[in-house]
Amino acid sequence: MLEKVALISTGDELTTGRTVDTNANFLADRLFSAGFDVVAILVVGDDRERIAWAWREAMEQAEVVISTGGLGPTADDLTTETIAQVTGRSLILDEAVAESIRQRFAAMGREMPLNNLKQARFPEGAVILSNPLGTAPGFRLEVESQIGRRWLFALPGVPREMKPMFTDQVLPWLVEHRGGNVVYLSRVFQTFGISESALDELVDGVVPSERGRLSFRAAFPQISVRLTVHGPPDQAERELAEWGDRLRQRLGVYCYAEGDASMEEVVGQELRRRGWRLAVAESCTGGLVGHRITNVPGSSHYFLGGVVAYSNEAKEQFLGVPRETLERYGAVSVETAQEMAAGVCQRFGADLGLGITGIAGPEGGSPDKPVGTVCFGLATATERFARRYQLWGTREWIKLLASQIALDWIRRQALGAGLPENFRFR
Amino acid sequence: MLEKVALISTGDELTTGRTVDTNANFLADRLFSAGFDVVAILVVGDDRERIAWAWREAMEQAEVVISTGGLGPTADDLTTETIAQVTGRSLILDEAVAESIRQRFAAMGREMPLNNLKQARFPEGAVILSNPLGTAPGFRLEVESQIGRRWLFALPGVPREMKPMFTDQVLPWLVEHRGGNVVYLSRVFQTFGISESALDELVDGVVPSERGRLSFRAAFPQISVRLTVHGPPDQAERELAEWGDRLRQRLGVYCYAEGDASMEEVVGQELRRRGWRLAVAESCTGGLVGHRITNVPGSSHYFLGGVVAYSNEAKEQFLGVPRETLERYGAVSVETAQEMAAGVCQRFGADLGLGITGIAGPEGGSPDKPVGTVCFGLATATERFARRYQLWGTREWIKLLASQIALDWIRRQALGAGLPENFRFR
Repeated sequence: MLEKVALISTGDELTTGRTVDTNANFLADRLFSAGFDVVAILVVGDDRERIAWAWREAMEQAEVVISTGGLGPTADDLTTETIAQVTGRSLILDEAVAESIRQRFAAMGREMPLNNLKQARFPEGAVILSNPLGTAPGFRLEVESQIGRRWLFALPGVPREMKPMFTDQVLPWLVEHRGGNVVYLSRVFQTFGISESALDELVDGVVPSERGRLSFRAAFPQISVRLTVHGPPDQAERELAEWGDRLRQRLGVYCYAEGDASMEEVVGQELRRRGWRLAVAESCTGGLVGHRITNVPGSSHYFLGGVVAYSNEAKEQFLGVPRETLERYGAVSVETAQEMAAGVCQRFGADLGLGITGIAGPEGGSPDKPVGTVCFGLATATERFARRYQLWGTREWIKLLASQIALDWIRRQALGAGLPENFRFR
Repeated sequence: MLEKVALISTGDELTTGRTVDTNANFLADRLFSAGFDVVAILVVGDDRERIAWAWREAMEQAEVVISTGGLGPTADDLTTETIAQVTGRSLILDEAVAESIRQRFAAMGREMPLNNLKQARFPEGAVILSNPLGTAPGFRLEVESQIGRRWLFALPGVPREMKPMFTDQVLPWLVEHRGGNVVYLSRVFQTFGISESALDELVDGVVPSERGRLSFRAAFPQISVRLTVHGPPDQAERELAEWGDRLRQRLGVYCYAEGDASMEEVVGQELRRRGWRLAVAESCTGGLVGHRITNVPGSSHYFLGGVVAYSNEAKEQFLGVPRETLERYGAVSVETAQEMAAGVCQRFGADLGLGITGIAGPEGGSPDKPVGTVCFGLATATERFARRYQLWGTREWIKLLASQIALDWIRRQALGAGLPENFRFR
């Protein structure tokens, strides 16, 4: 039964701190979700001896070894030849891969430097893993030694190339060859507006603990909840569907998406579904809400634009906030937030207007309105609504959280779900 | 002579992919800059055997071992006792640390759970490293074994606590005990608007290669250039100053900052220096320029606000772009960008107005104006200027790059440096 996996990340950029090792994180996350046990991650620079050490140790520790990096055409790309050396295999030229490299150079009208053929050599017995998005193919190698049978995988280090290769060619193979009749399946739900400990209580008892596992992952400002079940395929699929639906129901309005969808994508879907067009008036967020909304392709269908009204004059002139409101209640007040929302809605001819005004800090707070005070307003042609929250953290943190709350208000409005009295998010 | 360092990162959150290992990246970067050689990074979960394996291997590979994580009060925090076991030391209670833990609980009015005393136990002979920002102190331990003398450092895993402890208590010790009379010193310069290969050519010959090293680090959209010199302290300091100044001069207007300053901070400094007040009109960037500018505390002193004019109507109504301009040249044109800049400048009563309009994709391109076409305009009361660039990449990439170019235009305008014909940035 395949269970233990060791990861190797190769490259001077990792051991000199130029690059963060996000590959190992990606692989560890996917392997954990599929029920494998990552026993160790080894990171070494582009050095023959150190790579050899990493492979020997990794093979000692685990039945499966997956490495990223070191497959390029230059002299400091040493992974393939080091694996050959460590496993006692010779390197064999793969004619098909060699030909495709020649053709690539021909297509660019360039002569192929001879060292590029390096990428067409593989340890004897290797099964080639194609790389549709790059030049370096990977490979799988099965090895039998005194310590037992080992499966070695070498993948390129470029995340954009490595990730689909792992997802399409490595993980399915591992799952198929795991042995036993047990599969691991998972569903992920994104939540906002509830703390991790409150989530933990909320979902208590939804999943029987023998075959299902719930794990939380906070990626501020959202928290994702992953349900993983294991068992024979039919049973696991049935339980995943049933428990997943039950979990989603329990999460209620806190759950804004299943899978990887972002809050701004969900907001876009909801606005399209309702046929609503949005305009935003931002003060303390400085344009972040507009930025996030426009990260979604096609957002011009429902986003008209907005005003970043950093000064009082701008709030008066571009949003029609009455000077009296500003003087009486202050620029950071529910009254001003509401006027901003109504003003931007009316002036842009939108269906929904949103206003945000607050104190992002670190300066500008007062006893009445400390740093982190943020007021939100929402307006349609017939309704207006505003509320004040007390947020905290750094300037960037407050801006990010405020933008998330604003998006969540839009989502809730579109769902007819009501706006929350309080936000709990840690 | 101390030269080789191995790093150990401990925690289930790393081997299950819940957290990216940024600690190792931070340590590797600082150690590399100080002239140390990180031979390996080992990552293991909270498992006694695996942690012991990591320490034995690390001590085999390097004279110095630095670990992060596993120092907390709970049962799965195993670093200290595993080090004691691997090095054959007993655990001794440190009365001063124990007392400070007791006092912390007393101050909170809570009784101290007994297992918290765990954090007051250290391997015999350990030198305690204080943790001003958290509860778990670290320690340094000197060990003599068959393989030679080893220096072990255990630090907490919380980055906010670990980083100052390393910077204040570990790195200076390493530098002092390195042996020899050699120090490594460095200066970092931030650049934008020139590709890595062009940078490489530009700075060729600035630094004699025997004692100085230049390294590039691309963190899109900027590229930083680090100069590291080594030698006896006096000489290294003198050479760092001299070569650093020469390097900065060679980088010219491409260099926007020394150290860690961001483009938006530099733009803020320049606007304050000139006493200019800014307003921005954004289309394809959707608010990102305003967001970045307002990430800087105190930006309300020079940033009045802006308009996110995603629709043609908004460009007419809020910025006064003539309908004729939009019909004749299109929303994405130098003419429209210029009108947007002039309109936002005049309407906000700003000293400087900036306009951006473009096609961020993935839809909306045409043969004339493919995805990535972005036009920028700059206006004062007396001057107007606009230019069209062809950018590329994903939607988010194009937005980010466009915002960086916009900020760089403002910087160059404030410096009187002239706007670039073309941007090369990779």
